[in-house]
Parts: sequence; C-alpha cells; structure tokens
Amino acid sequence: MAPFSTGLGGRHGRSGLGDGRMMGQNGRPDLGALLWPRSVAVVGASPDMETLRGRIMKVMTGHAFKGSLYPISRSHGEVMGLKAYPSVADLPAPADLAILIIPAQHVPAELERCGKAGVRSAVVLSSGFAEATGGDGAGLQDEMRAIVKRYGMAVMGPNSEGFANTAAALCPTFSPAVEPSDRPLLPQGRARGQLAVIAQSGGIGFSFFDHGRAKELAFRYVVTTGNEACLDTLDFADFILDEGKVSALLMLLEDVKSPDSFRRVAEKALKAGVPIIVNKIGQSEAGMRAAASHTAALAGSYDAHRAMFQRYGLIEVRDLGEMVDIAADFVAFGSKLPAGKRVGICTASGGGGGWMADACTAAGLEVPQLDAATRAKIDVHLPVYGTSQNPVDATAQALHKIGYAGLARFVVESPAVDSVVVVMTARNAANLERQREAMTALAAEAGKPILLWSYTLPAPASVKLLSEAGYPLFTDIPNCARTLRAMADYRALRERFLRPIAVRAPFDVDRAAAQRGLAVAGPVLCEWEARPILAAYGIGSKDAGELVERADAAAAAAQKIGGAVALKVQSPDIAHKTEAGAVALNLVGADAVRTAYARVLGNAVRAVPNARVLGVLVQPMAPPGREVILGVKRDATFGPLLMVGLGGVNVEIFKDVALAPLPLSEADARDMLGRLKGAPLLGSFRGQPAADVNALVDLMVRLGQFASDHAETIAEIDLNPVLVHPQGQGVSVVDALIVKGQPQPLRT
Amino acid sequence: MAPFSTGLGGRHGRSGLGDGRMMGQNGRPDLGALLWPRSVAVVGASPDMETLRGRIMKVMTGHAFKGSLYPISRSHGEVMGLKAYPSVADLPAPADLAILIIPAQHVPAELERCGKAGVRSAVVLSSGFAEATGGDGAGLQDEMRAIVKRYGMAVMGPNSEGFANTAAALCPTFSPAVEPSDRPLLPQGRARGQLAVIAQSGGIGFSFFDHGRAKELAFRYVVTTGNEACLDTLDFADFILDEGKVSALLMLLEDVKSPDSFRRVAEKALKAGVPIIVNKIGQSEAGMRAAASHTAALAGSYDAHRAMFQRYGLIEVRDLGEMVDIAADFVAFGSKLPAGKRVGICTASGGGGGWMADACTAAGLEVPQLDAATRAKIDVHLPVYGTSQNPVDATAQALHKIGYAGLARFVVESPAVDSVVVVMTARNAANLERQREAMTALAAEAGKPILLWSYTLPAPASVKLLSEAGYPLFTDIPNCARTLRAMADYRALRERFLRPIAVRAPFDVDRAAAQRGLAVAGPVLCEWEARPILAAYGIGSKDAGELVERADAAAAAAQKIGGAVALKVQSPDIAHKTEAGAVALNLVGADAVRTAYARVLGNAVRAVPNARVLGVLVQPMAPPGREVILGVKRDATFGPLLMVGLGGVNVEIFKDVALAPLPLSEADARDMLGRLKGAPLLGSFRGQPAADVNALVDLMVRLGQFASDHAETIAEIDLNPVLVHPQGQGVSVVDALIVKGQPQPLRT
Repeated sequence: MAPFSTGLGGRHGRSGLGDGRMMGQNGRPDLGALLWPRSVAVVGASPDMETLRGRIMKVMTGHAFKGSLYPISRSHGEVMGLKAYPSVADLPAPADLAILIIPAQHVPAELERCGKAGVRSAVVLSSGFAEATGGDGAGLQDEMRAIVKRYGMAVMGPNSEGFANTAAALCPTFSPAVEPSDRPLLPQGRARGQLAVIAQSGGIGFSFFDHGRAKELAFRYVVTTGNEACLDTLDFADFILDEGKVSALLMLLEDVKSPDSFRRVAEKALKAGVPIIVNKIGQSEAGMRAAASHTAALAGSYDAHRAMFQRYGLIEVRDLGEMVDIAADFVAFGSKLPAGKRVGICTASGGGGGWMADACTAAGLEVPQLDAATRAKIDVHLPVYGTSQNPVDATAQALHKIGYAGLARFVVESPAVDSVVVVMTARNAANLERQREAMTALAAEAGKPILLWSYTLPAPASVKLLSEAGYPLFTDIPNCARTLRAMADYRALRERFLRPIAVRAPFDVDRAAAQRGLAVAGPVLCEWEARPILAAYGIGSKDAGELVERADAAAAAAQKIGGAVALKVQSPDIAHKTEAGAVALNLVGADAVRTAYARVLGNAVRAVPNARVLGVLVQPMAPPGREVILGVKRDATFGPLLMVGLGGVNVEIFKDVALAPLPLSEADARDMLGRLKGAPLLGSFRGQPAADVNALVDLMVRLGQFASDHAETIAEIDLNPVLVHPQGQGVSVVDALIVKGQPQPLRT
Repeated sequence: MAPFSTGLGGRHGRSGLGDGRMMGQNGRPDLGALLWPRSVAVVGASPDMETLRGRIMKVMTGHAFKGSLYPISRSHGEVMGLKAYPSVADLPAPADLAILIIPAQHVPAELERCGKAGVRSAVVLSSGFAEATGGDGAGLQDEMRAIVKRYGMAVMGPNSEGFANTAAALCPTFSPAVEPSDRPLLPQGRARGQLAVIAQSGGIGFSFFDHGRAKELAFRYVVTTGNEACLDTLDFADFILDEGKVSALLMLLEDVKSPDSFRRVAEKALKAGVPIIVNKIGQSEAGMRAAASHTAALAGSYDAHRAMFQRYGLIEVRDLGEMVDIAADFVAFGSKLPAGKRVGICTASGGGGGWMADACTAAGLEVPQLDAATRAKIDVHLPVYGTSQNPVDATAQALHKIGYAGLARFVVESPAVDSVVVVMTARNAANLERQREAMTALAAEAGKPILLWSYTLPAPASVKLLSEAGYPLFTDIPNCARTLRAMADYRALRERFLRPIAVRAPFDVDRAAAQRGLAVAGPVLCEWEARPILAAYGIGSKDAGELVERADAAAAAAQKIGGAVALKVQSPDIAHKTEAGAVALNLVGADAVRTAYARVLGNAVRAVPNARVLGVLVQPMAPPGREVILGVKRDATFGPLLMVGLGGVNVEIFKDVALAPLPLSEADARDMLGRLKGAPLLGSFRGQPAADVNALVDLMVRLGQFASDHAETIAEIDLNPVLVHPQGQGVSVVDALIVKGQPQPLRT
C-alpha cells in the first residue's frame, strides 16, 4: 500500500505553509487543522473491535498516517499498541484534531476540555443532538456550538461519520468502506485526476467512495458533515476548492444553511471549472421527513434549490451510481468538454449501438450521420454488413483489425460530432490489454471526450486498464448518455457565465419612492396601491384607470376612457377578485357599467363580508396578447425567487413554470423562458405574430430588481395576468398584488 | 459444475414427450427440435481457437450437454477430441439441430443438404444477409427462407449469435458470456424461479445473461434471433410460454413481424402472469438506422409499439441493468405483487432512506406515515435519534439488535403499505450471514414484496446469500423504485384484463352501409362525404347542415337554421380548410353569409387552383365545449391506432396525446383519457362544469369500431375538432376527414 503514490504528498500545500496546516482566515475556523492534522487524539478509543470505538482505531491504525495518533481512554493504558492518555490535557503537546466518540451528553464538557488544552479542531461522531426526537438534543447542540465558537475551533458534526483524507492516509471514521484491505485507498498505476465527496449523510458519503473505488476513481477526500452544528458542507467545499487539487465535487445535500455561502462557493467552483454534482435529499415530503429526523436539516423548498442549481451550473442527479459516473468523466475529460450535443457512436454490436443512439436522443443529444470524408475512411475497413453512417457498426471482424481506438479515432476527428461513445465489451481484459497503448494515446491526443460503455459486465482488470488509459467505463446506458449531456450543458453554461457581459445602463428606478410607498402600505397591497410602487421601477403603467366610489362616477370614467372597460373592486382583503366575482370585463356603455358596478361590489361584500373596500377601479380593456403569469415568492433559504409561466392552463395543469433566484440578468430571463415547454407559444404560432419577448424580458428584469431591492419587506408579488402583445407593442400588466412580510431567520 | 441442479432436468417436459422433443403443431416448425435437440451438428467446426468456428466448439464442449455433438468439417477428421464428419449427410443418424457457421453464400446449399439429410432444425450464425448494405444479402435470405419452408425446418437466424439452454447445458454460440468457467450457468444452492431472454441482437442478448448471472439470476434460455428470416422473437416467446417454466421474459425487440402473433403472445403472457420486460431499439431516428443496418429490421413507428405495450402490459424499460433488476424482482415476488403504490422504507442510513423516499415519490409511489400501532411496535426498539414515521430510520444500533428482517417484518405487516424497501449495506457478507435464517423466513412468509437496496457496493457473497434467501439485491436507487411501480402497475393492469367485463350491447352500426359509402367514394372524403358514412356508426350527426352552390342559397339555408352559422368549402382536394381560408365562422345575417360565401370560395380556389369543389356547407355553430382531437392512423406494423388529444396547444406544443390499438373497449378509452396530462381539463375546471366524458368515450369506441371494421380501406381519419359539451349534453363532431388507402404488406 502506497497512499502517497499520487505524488501529492501528505502535506497540505496551500499558502506556502509547509507544516501541513492552514491558518484561520478572517476569524474563520481553521479547516486545515481538521483535514490535515499533525496529531490526532481519539477521545473514547477502545480496543474492543465489537464497538464503534474499537473499529475506528482499527481503521485509523490500518493506514499509513504519518502524524501522531493518541488514544484517549480512562480505562486503558494502551489501545492497539498505542500509548493511551486519560485526557486531551495530558498529551505531550496539544493535538491538532480530536475525534469524539463518546455519549452525546459528555460532548460539551469534552469540547471545553479540548479548547482549554489548545486542541484546534474536532470531529464529533456522537449522535443524539438536534436530530433526536426525544430528550434535549437540540439544547446540547446549542451548548456545543457556543463552546466551539468561544475557542474558535474547527468542528465537524455532531452525528458525523468522520472523514477520509487519502493523501494523508488519515481516516478518522468507523466506516467499513475505508477499512484497511488489499485494495489501496487510491488507485495505483498512472496518476489521474482526483475528486472529493462532501455529504451530510455518513453512510451515503462513504458509499460514494465505495462505488467510485470499484471504478478506479481517485478520491482525495470523503467528508461527512452530519448535523453541521458548526462547519457545513459549503465550508468544506470552499476549503477544497481553494486547495485546487480536485476536478469534481460530489455533494449530498440535505439543507443549505447560508444562501450567501452557497452563492459564493458555487461561483468559485464554476469559475474554477470544478463541477459540483449534487443530489438534494428531501425532494419529496417523505424525503424531507427523513432529512429532518436524520441530520436535523431544515430542508428548504426543493424548487428553490433546483433554481439555484440551474443558475450556478450544479449538476443535479437522481442516482448515486449515476453521480459517480458523471464525476468520473468530468475528472477524465474536464479539459475537453464537448462543444455541442452531437455524438458519434462506434460499436461492434448493432443492438448496442442502436440502444445507445436511442439513449442519447432521449437525453437531448443528437446522433447525426457522419460526413462523407469520415465515412470513406471508415468504409475501407468494413465488411458489407457493417455501416459507417452513425452509429458506426464496424462488426467484430473490423474491430478485430483496427481496434476500438482505431475506429474511435476516425470518428472523433469528424467535424460532424462533438464527442464519441464507444460501445464495447470489456468482459475480457486480455483482449483490451492488446489495445492499451492505442487507447492511451487516443485519450491523450483526442480533442473531444470519448466515453466507453461496456454492454457486458466488465472484468475488474478491464476497468483498471481502461482507467489507466484515461477512460472511466460505463456499465449503464442512460448514465453514459446523460453524462455527455451534462458535460455539454456545463460547458455552455460556464462559458456564458465567464463571458464579460455588456454592462446594462442602471435602471431608471426610484428605489426611495418605492420604499416609502411600501412603508406606509398595509400588509396586502391591492392593484390600486401596488401600481404606483411598481411604477417606480417602470413596471406596468402608473396611470391605469380611475378609482371610483359610485356607479355614476364609474360610468363617467368609462365614457372618458372610451371603448370597452373593466371594473375591479379594490380591497386589500380580497386577494382573489375573479373567484369572488369582484371583476367585470368588456363593459360597453353607461348602463352596462352601472349594472356591473353594483354587481361586483355586491359580490365582493358577499365573498368577504368585512372587507375594506377602497373603491372600484375603472380601466380600459388591455389589447389582446399572450397570457403570462409573473410572480415572486420568498424561499425560506434562498430569499426571493421569480416565477414565470405561460397562460393559465399551462401553469395549472402542466405545471409549466420556470423559477430563478434574484436578481436576474436579461440572459437569465431569456434562459427562464427557454426552459418553458410552452416557449414556442411566444413565437409565431397558429397565425399569430411573435410576441414582444424583449418587453417581457425587460419586465422580468425590472420585477426581479424590485423584489431584490425590497427583499426584506416583500414576501410575495403576483402580476397575473401579464399580456404580452405582438413584437414592438410591449406588455400590459393587467393585475398586480403585493404581500408584505419579513423573512424568518434560518434555524441553524 | 452441475447444470441440472435446479431439478428441472435436461429434458423438456411438455405434452408428456419423454424424448426431449416437441412435435410440430399446426404445420409450424418444431421449436422443440431446435431448443431441445438430442443431437447437434456444427457445420464449419474448427479446432482453431482464434476463430469463431473454434470458439463455438470450445463453448459447446465445455458444458455437460448430454446429447451427441458432431463437428462437420471437410478438413479435419477430429475437432476437440470429437470425431468429425465431412457432411451432415454422413452422420450415423440425422441430427436434430445443425449449427451453421460458414460463409453466407454457402448457407442455402447447406440448408438444402440438411433438409435432405432429415435435419429438423438449424441455427444460422453467418452474417451477410439482409442486414448487409452491399451485395445480394437480401436475395440469399429469400433463398434460404424458401428452402427452410420446403423442408419445414425450425431455423434461427441468420446473423444470430445462437442460444443457450441452461437446463440442457447446451450453448450453441461463440458468445464469451457462456464460455465454460468456474461459475455455473445456473446459480447453485436453493432452487429459484427462472427467466428467459429473447433478443434480436446477439451481443446484447447474452449481455443480459452476463449482468443477470452476477445477480444470481437463473436463466433458462438466452435466445438471439438475428435477422429472423424464419422464426422470430414471438415464436420463441410462444414456445417458452407454453412450456410454463419461466416467471419473466426479457425481450430486446428491433421490429415486430406479425402483429397478430404479437397480440396472441402478449395475451398469453398476460394471462399466465409472465411479465414481458422489453426494450424496443429504434425509438430515435438514429436508433432506427442502427436497427435497419444491423438485423435488417424494419422498425415500425415507436409510438405504435408503445401503444401496444401499454395495452398488453409489456413493461418498457430504458436500460439493460434496469431490465435485469425488474425481471429479478418479478421472478422473486411474482406471486405477491403489491396491491397498491404505498411503500414502507426501512433504513439505518437516514440519508439513504431519504434518498429512497425521493426516488419512490419520483416514480409515482407513495411513502405514507405508518399507522400508530405499527409505530408503537417499532418505537420500543429505537434510540431517541431514530424514527418510526416512514422512512423508518432505525439507526445502526437498533438494527444490530433486531436485524433487517426484524425491522422489515414490523413494516410489512402494517396496513398502511403495500410493499417494503429495505435500505441496507451489503458490503460485508458475514454480517448478513447471521441474518440469513430470519431473512429467508421473512421472504417466505411475507404477503408483500420486500425489495432490498444496498447503498454500499455489495460483496458477491452477499448477493448470493440474499438471492438464496429469496431477495434480488438492488444497487441502483431509481431501479428499485421503478421496479415497485412496474409491479404495482402490472398487477392492476392484469387484474383489469382478467376481470370478466359486462358484455356491451352490440353497436347500432350499419357496417354494410358504411362499406358501400366508402366503396363509391374517392381517395379523400371531405366532411360532406364522410358524414353519412360515419353516421352509420353513430358518429356525429347525419343531418349537419346544407350543401349549397350559390350565395343566395347559403343565405337562405342560414336563415332556415337560425342563429350564427359556419360556412365550409367542401372539396376532397382541400384537406386543410382553415389554413386555406375556406372556412368562415359565427356568421349572423344574410349579408354576412353572402359576403363570407364569396370570400371562402375565393380563398379555396386561390389555395388549390384546380380543386374540385362540391359546394359550401352551411351549418349551425356548435355550442361551446372542450376542444378534443380524435384521429385514426394506420401503423405499418400494427394497423389502425386511435389518437386522442385535448385542445390545440396541448397537442401541438405539449405533445399531450394518447394512442391505442383497435378495437377499443370503454375501459381502454377511459384509460387513454387518463393518460393525458391534461386530463383534469375534462373535469370541473376554472368554474366550467365537468365535460360529458361518457359521450366522448362512446364516440371513441364507435370511431375505433368503425376504423377497425374498415381497416383494409381506411388509412386515416381526423375528427378535428370534436367539442365535448357539459355532462349530459353530448359531443359535437365539428369537422371530419377520411383518407382511404390500402395497407402495404410488411417486409419480412
């Protein structure tokens, strides 16, 4: 076993500190002391292999950690051949890291002891804190947090399963996944790119390692954060990104504790080109129940998380194995992500090629016919029952002659494709051994990613061989296709993100006016109250009708306006006017207006007997247009998000809406519209001219700016409907509602 | 190696024939001679292990086949220690089966020789037939088919990879997947249910076996049918179903050659409760290209295949590994499929439980909270940081005490769930060995399926142990959830299928009248021509307006009708009247009608200058209703299919349509409507009363009957739009079009 074989060494290289430590920056706790300690004390260590306290010692002593390891035990003078100490206070020198594996109720006192003794960091493995349903676990967790803060320690947990730092051969965990075995922690042979796992769940965190190791992946860290009382997933991600040693991050997230931290870390990762492959536990109600009871996570709205992931290019994945597959190929091909969605498929199994073509198409990729020049080069080698069209079905016979690499090289050089999938059989490693050199050269020289799928169950030796040659091996068809799609999407999103954008002239907004209007308003602002405030941001028209208090005045207003009018009862107590019958549309003539006036007021009073009515709004009917719903809702974690949907049925029945965090650039707004399945409805459709998308985008950006500027005051905004008129004719905000409310502080 | 260990023996048991053969029935070739031969000749056998001709001998001789094996070779007197014969004619007795592994051009002559020599069946492994792009492969295939027919032989291929009959230890194939090895063809230990693979693609066919064997599945047959010049996938399925020895069929389909055979076999499987788990290659254009060049398949419309699969409960799956997973659990739990979609989840990993809950919800299952009585039983065993809500997070501590079986037993007995998923870690087989007995007892006694997912990579010994205990093991989260969903759906569909349905009174249809009408009509029937024919089936109203040829007549007709009318130019040459401007709606008053008359006729002539115009139809405007599109299209493989979609945008933008084969029962029609995402639009929606779904269903059934009765004459029918009025008020068929055309014979 040679845990340092990657050449990275056991020391941490950042900021020139040669002693393997990190200094705490900006008063933040020192994660370097935690992940790269020179000395580790295990509080609660035991020689009894039947207990977790014994198993952790077995795991830790079984790896070639170069630092000092101190068992802390009151009942044993020696554990696993190491001298034990009765307390962290008795150590020859303060430990950099203490591992606590003791009952929850003793944890605060022990942390106090650690702090006093100068211990700089700790991992709390004990359970029974905020995740416990009975007892005072939450209180214990608060107590623990206060102590940790006082001493400025870096602390992982509680309810964590510890971590693994493979380069340091340090595994303070009882996870069986990193138990000493014949299999080294890092794959041997040629050095390859590394990745890291950060998971709130210990069991799942280490299972990523378990699955990935079988695929010859090199994990630099596995970090399991548990309840995250002090340090959270994003703190570790931040540290690992700053190190600059991994090409991908696998993340299992139960909640986000700080949205600012999320934004900062996600941006850092995107800039660095280190993809974050994520699953968010708690997408369903039952999943949320599980997360809450499990690591005391307060799972925020899944939709909001999803919108954040989309904004920052986090790659959201539904299966553990698929996450590992995607990470593996990003590590291998991160420097040559596909420039587009066109895939060339090479195969000796016609059925396998067809299946992969179907899977690629289902994943939103294209499988175009190859260009004539490429086909001519390939055809030379094919028997009559092969084909070079794409999938290129070379037949076993031709592949025997030119090999997978020979065939893939023809295809990867074709201008018609951005990436290549080779459908192969990897059950026999000896067959592949003959192709090792050619495959290795191809991986190094090709300018596009080449993904391999084995339709047979691969021999472990095949997996190893191909990994050394530079290729992860897929055994799952959709995973392979979805990985290519994720790589193409990630590259496109990142390039858009990195591109300097034309700075937009500052809005013609009157923030102060809006603020004043909001300050004096009640908790719910009906259209009449909301309009002038929104108008300060150029949203809707300030002058959109007349508020009247008598039927005659309504008729007079209608006459002044001319043409058909609408009447709408204005009351902060009637949010759903249409349902209450408090709206009348398309009224022509004084009589119609008078009759409608009485009707809508009567309906309003019947619907909400004690409603405060400001009056009835008389407005011209808006010209026709595509119906759009714009809304802003505050998420408990991420703050205000903008929602857009087209038409009523599309939103209600097909749930066809897009959500994005604020503020919003024009590009973001266009991206949202593009995500709608109903997007074609905004173009020329059924003889209608294209809608004024530019005006809609402008409205979305303004609304986003408004909601963002007043995020502390506004809980909800509804512009429903907005009518988008034909190109050049703008939009009409037909109705508007603002609900005030202050954000609730996040539980941490 | 003990290939007979399942107790099934090497002989074929059906119909009491003790000699291991099947008699050909109804003049059909004898598949028993092919799959269960007493003697096999390998034409082209060679001792050279570098060639396929040598490898097949190595594979065949490496298994304990009890019959006679005769190499046929002109150049060798002996192959692999077996006496070789120069020709099939020289054998001591006619072989039951000949394996042909010789160049394509020699195949017809060799089959002729076989026929003459009394050989009863053959497998043609040679490539270069209809799948070949150059040369006369198609001609060779026709020649071969004629010879086979003349001698009544049962023939698999050409371009096949052979088959495996594990009970007979017979593997006439060069597939490396069944090469002799330490691993027996069938799992050892306790007997378990068996399954079969039938695939057009050889490589993929055997890869099912390869993947399944690693999961300890017992494959009775792997059959790879290649070009299917003679016997096709469904012939083999039919034979295997008649045997009654397998609990599931895995099928990789590139095309269906006989729709009748499909219906018959699919019904037989459904009656027997043997699920067919299928992937159809050629879902995408590129996939179709691949299938065509690969096994000369004429991939029919994927949508039509899908409709057939839905009708007969075939389980369509996108990944190979997922197909194997689903099959495994059907084999294990086929007799106790879940009665509903409610899942109980047991776990020691909170993260794993949450993830599984999310996956189950995404698959359309429910993860309800458990009932109080069950929770009370569980709570006794849990520490404070566990929870019994569901997912039941028992924590490692409690599981250590009561075991997976103990916990799962509590949950499976809960009236709140129909099935159980146990989230486990199976990396350590020794831990599971202790639980073997309890797990075995639970599998035998539980009345509901219990699925296992290991979040860690399982040890092969764990997979074996659990398989013996009665449980396949999942390593993929979505596969586990989707399997449960497939099991629940299959049970529901099968119960509906088996239930005796109230016989519906025969339609009040006049088939002869419709037939006469169709016979005298031209190739395209506009509304005026189509109406009386459709009316013979009670579709639409016979009396739906007046056909006029002058503006004055139009005005007079409108006055007679009263109220608003529509004008529609009637011409068999103008299929798209609205686009041509040949329709005018909502006309009130004689002047309006006269003006519109001139306009629509003018537009019609401009759009299609030489159109034959029958006149202009004057109709009352239909009362309002939900807009529905009904259509019938003839699929090249499956004949007429009915399509239904709601409203224009739903069909055009969201592709929200349902398709089903004909004829159609009322239940089928309701099922189609239920499959529409927009189904809620037919209910009470936005203040509208519920639509007259009964009338719509009746119309669908009648249209289906009409299209089915006249399938040989009609290529296409469009009823677009149909307006569905409020409950009790029926439907209006607003427009109708029939296109005649005879079906093209299928290429075979």
